[in-house]
This record gives sequence, C-alpha cells and structure tokens, in this order.
Amino acid sequence: MKPSDKKIYVAIMGFGNIGRGVAELLKTNAKTITDNSGVEVVLKYILDVRFPAESEFEPLFVTDFSVIEHDADVSVVVETIGDTKFAYNFTKLALRSGKSVVTSNKELVALHGFELFALAQENNVKYLVEASVGGGIPIIHPLRHCLAANKITEIYGILNGTCNYILTEMTNNGTDYATALKAAQALGYAEPNPDADVSGKDTFRKICVLSMLAFGKQIDPNSVRIKGIQDVNIPPKGKIKLIGRAVLKDDGDVEVSVAPQVLDDSELLANVNGVFNAVVFRCDALGDVVFYGKGAGKMPTASAVVADILECGGGAANGKC
Amino acid sequence: MKPSDKKIYVAIMGFGNIGRGVAELLKTNAKTITDNSGVEVVLKYILDVRFPAESEFEPLFVTDFSVIEHDADVSVVVETIGDTKFAYNFTKLALRSGKSVVTSNKELVALHGFELFALAQENNVKYLVEASVGGGIPIIHPLRHCLAANKITEIYGILNGTCNYILTEMTNNGTDYATALKAAQALGYAEPNPDADVSGKDTFRKICVLSMLAFGKQIDPNSVRIKGIQDVNIPPKGKIKLIGRAVLKDDGDVEVSVAPQVLDDSELLANVNGVFNAVVFRCDALGDVVFYGKGAGKMPTASAVVADILECGGGAANGKC
Repeated sequence: MKPSDKKIYVAIMGFGNIGRGVAELLKTNAKTITDNSGVEVVLKYILDVRFPAESEFEPLFVTDFSVIEHDADVSVVVETIGDTKFAYNFTKLALRSGKSVVTSNKELVALHGFELFALAQENNVKYLVEASVGGGIPIIHPLRHCLAANKITEIYGILNGTCNYILTEMTNNGTDYATALKAAQALGYAEPNPDADVSGKDTFRKICVLSMLAFGKQIDPNSVRIKGIQDVNIPPKGKIKLIGRAVLKDDGDVEVSVAPQVLDDSELLANVNGVFNAVVFRCDALGDVVFYGKGAGKMPTASAVVADILECGGGAANGKC
Repeated sequence: MKPSDKKIYVAIMGFGNIGRGVAELLKTNAKTITDNSGVEVVLKYILDVRFPAESEFEPLFVTDFSVIEHDADVSVVVETIGDTKFAYNFTKLALRSGKSVVTSNKELVALHGFELFALAQENNVKYLVEASVGGGIPIIHPLRHCLAANKITEIYGILNGTCNYILTEMTNNGTDYATALKAAQALGYAEPNPDADVSGKDTFRKICVLSMLAFGKQIDPNSVRIKGIQDVNIPPKGKIKLIGRAVLKDDGDVEVSVAPQVLDDSELLANVNGVFNAVVFRCDALGDVVFYGKGAGKMPTASAVVADILECGGGAANGKC
C-alpha cells in the first residue's frame, strides 16, 4: 500500500441499500482505494432513524444529525436517504456547516439541484452527484472534466435499468409486459410499486440532472412530455428502448423528452441489454461519445459515491503512476 | 461568458496535425472552454522546426525551446511532436523546468512513461496522457478519478481506428484486405506506410499505457505476442476485431496480448464499427464499464488535450453548475 498522505472523514446519512453498499465498499476495498488515490477514507458516522438489529457498523450509528454537523473532522457527508422530504433539509444543513455532500438522490438533484450547487459554492464546498445518474458509470465527472473543450448539443440514452430489463425480456424472449415486470420484481430490479420506473419518471429525473450540468438549465417538469413503457408494442424489426433525450436548440432553449423509441439493430444503443445503461453526448469537437455500464445496484452505485468522496477531498486519484 | 478567474498560458511543441488541431480548438471554442471551466487558456508559443508559409498563428511561432523554458508564464507544454527522438528530451526539459506536459504521444508514454510520470512528480507538476489512447474519448481521466474505488482485473478493447475501419469494410462489404487498406489510405485513416497500425504495434502501445496506469506495471515488449490484421480471415459468423488486452493474474503479473478475435454479434464491441474505438474495464465493484467514441482525428484528439490542459491548471471544470 502506498503511504496515504491524507485522511478524509466521512458520514453516511441513510443506511438503506446504497448507504450500506458505501460502508461495505469502504471496508472491503480500503487498500485498493488508498493504493489508487493516496487517500484513506475513514467512515466515522452512520445516521439513520432505524438500524438493523445486528451490524458490524454498529459503533458508528448515530440518530442525531448535530453530532455530524459539529464534528470538524468530518468533511464529506454522503446523502443516500433518497426522496426529498428529509434529504433536502439535511443536505442544506451539511453544506451550510461547511461539509461537502455526495449524493445518489436523483429526485433531489432534479428538483433542487440548482439551489444546492449554488449553496455548495457559497460555502466553498462541493455538491457531487455522479451516483444520481447511471449508477456507477462515470458520466457526470467526465462531462464536467473531460468534455470541457466541447459545446454539447444533445444528450440521450438508456437511463433506467428496470425498463431496459423489461423491454429486453419482451424483445428477446417474447415475454408479455406483465410477466416481464413480475420477473424484474422477483429479481429485485423493480420495486413492488414500479410506477416511478415504468412511467418514465426516473428517466426524466436523470435527463434533467444531465441537462442541468451540460446546459446550465433547470428543466420545468410541466414542459416535458413523458411516455413510459406500460403500453409499449414490440416492433417486428429493430429494438425498442426507453430513451431520455435533451436537445439544445438554436435559441438556447433545451427540449427534453422521454419516450420509447425503435432503434436499428446496428446502432450501439440497440445492443445495450438488460439492466445496463448507456449515455451518449453529442459534442462539437469530439463527436459522439458513449458511456456504458451497470446503471444501478448497490456496489456499482457505491463505486460512484466513493469516487465523488475522493474528489471532494481533492484526492490525488492518480492511478498507479 | 462566466468571468474567467484564471488564465493558463500554454505552449505547443510540434505543429503537425494534432498540434494544429489544439491551436484551432483553443481559438474556435475559446468561449465554450471558459464557460465550462472558468479558465481562460492562452496559447503563447508554437514550437516547430518548420512552419506553414502562411498561418494565422504566425505571431506565436518560435524555433528555440529555451524561449518557452524561460518564460515563467507558461505553465503547460503540449507535446504533439510524436515519435521519441525529440519528444523524449523536450518532455524531460519541460518537466524539469517546472512545467506540466500534456501529450498525445503513445509511443513515448509506452516506452518512457514510468520515468516521465516520476519526473513530473519530482518536479511537482503533471504529465497527462489522455490523448495518447482512444483519441478524444475520456478513458484515462475516468480510470484515474472515477474507478478509484475498484480493483481492475482486466482491460480490453478496440484501440486502433485504422484496423477497425479495414475489418469493418471486409466484414460488412466483403472487401478484400488490400482494397480496404487502400480505401483507408484514400480517406486519410491509414498512413502511406501502414505498418504501425496493421501490425498491431499501435494497439500494443495503447494497451501498455493503460496497463501502466491501471496496474502500475511497465510492460516488457518482448514478453508480448502481437498479431496484426494482415493475414486475417473474415469468419462466416460473428464479427472480427483487433483486440488489445491486459489481464491481471493472481500472482500480480500482467499478461498483455494483441490479436484479432471473433466476437458474437450480440456483444457490444462487435457493434463498434469503422474508425470508432471502445475500451472495457472490468472492475470488482462496478462490473464492466465501456467508453466509446472517436479514437483518432485532429479535433477529437485536440478535445482530450485541452481537457488535460484544464486539469493541469487545476481548472474548476465544473460544467454549467
């Protein structure tokens, strides 16, 4: 292990599936993380209203946010609460107390991102949201850092693994919608109430987050036509995919849409199957660039959260050289 | 345009195709770059031994490296000389004089990367090499920053656009090798002497660079079996691709290979056609992640160079939010 010249103390708010994944990844891959980044990430607190009866992380459990707020060691707070009810206020409190916040909460970013990015800047900290779009796939960091020489004119992609799993089952195996949805639920890919996914709402939130970062525009939800996959017909040729799309128009406006779309078999996105996601950025100098990988899941999403923690710490994430 | 709170003064060494692309991109996309990053990149010198008779960049031309070396304003030197004869010495001189170096020169990085990364670190500057692999596709920056929570066990991909163009023509249009090569040359995708591309040497250099950064190993060229596309037979089923591959073995060694390989039609990489490139990283937490786009060309490669310039400057490449 490289000598770690730096420690980052972290608190996790919300010990659900993703929050637990972050705690586990920080533990199991501690050596890898330090080897790769020269930084040691120390998990100091886990905040939730309820905890599992037995947990290896029990000594870290707290129920009072002010413990985290007043601990000057903690520089990064991970928000994996989800929803906006509590997450919105805790995020504001954390940013105002001078702590960077890393989140997987697309609903909160889509709805209040503009305000929270500004609040982070005011407080000279970061609000990093890689895990809110495309699970663990590096999308937002490359957008911000690697495409900076380009004018981006369009973003589109397959942003919801649940829908893509259902559509892939229907296309490849001739399964009907209801059966494919049940299979997705049995595998844990779809929630008991699948509405947010199959209605296209989740895809809409993610394309809103990407639009915000690429075009600097908060999208008005009422201006967007969102069509989900509930009434989809499988076409005889090509592949049908639920596509979220944001187009920068000549007048500077951004047009956002979510709808199932038939792609020719030879298109790269036609071959993105199952729970995988892929996002295309259309760039003026670079042309089309695509990022592909696991768009959801505990450990993939935790991978994105940890990368953002390292970025908050100004981590010298320099690979092995 | 956002107020640019920061200026980075840059020199370009080597005014060939890529060097000219960087100069042009910095000019045409100046507003975009500053809007996206908050940084103004000022091109101050262009070093070469010969220049075009007429050029809009004429006021910047110098033939003496010491002008750049002794200008304290210049913090980043772009090395687009290519080859290793002059590039190696100029890179060392630039790093030793406390300037970061950004390069598209895969041959130099594959051969002397280890020494140059260490030299940069000693001098408290950066040696950034995004443009040396996969043209403009963000690959190395995401590897270093976004995958840092993962142990990477394998890297493979289509890393040479010339070979992929020839193989795509042969597969899709039944063209024979000699005719496809001539077409590639006519389109400027292949050099008059195509050996470095078609022999697999170029792919080998790129997979060496990726191995170095992911696994911390300098690869011994003599340990690697490199097979090019000159004697390839198009298979009746599936798609044949020239694949560069690096596998981390259980004993910590890295096994590198370059060879044509038949992929099933349903595989994502089977559908990477023409001059496009794609690279797969196999990660323990994230699973497989793929980066796809234009692996060569003047403006795509310039896009990667400019992103690295911004990183050298610690550029607040924060997108629009």
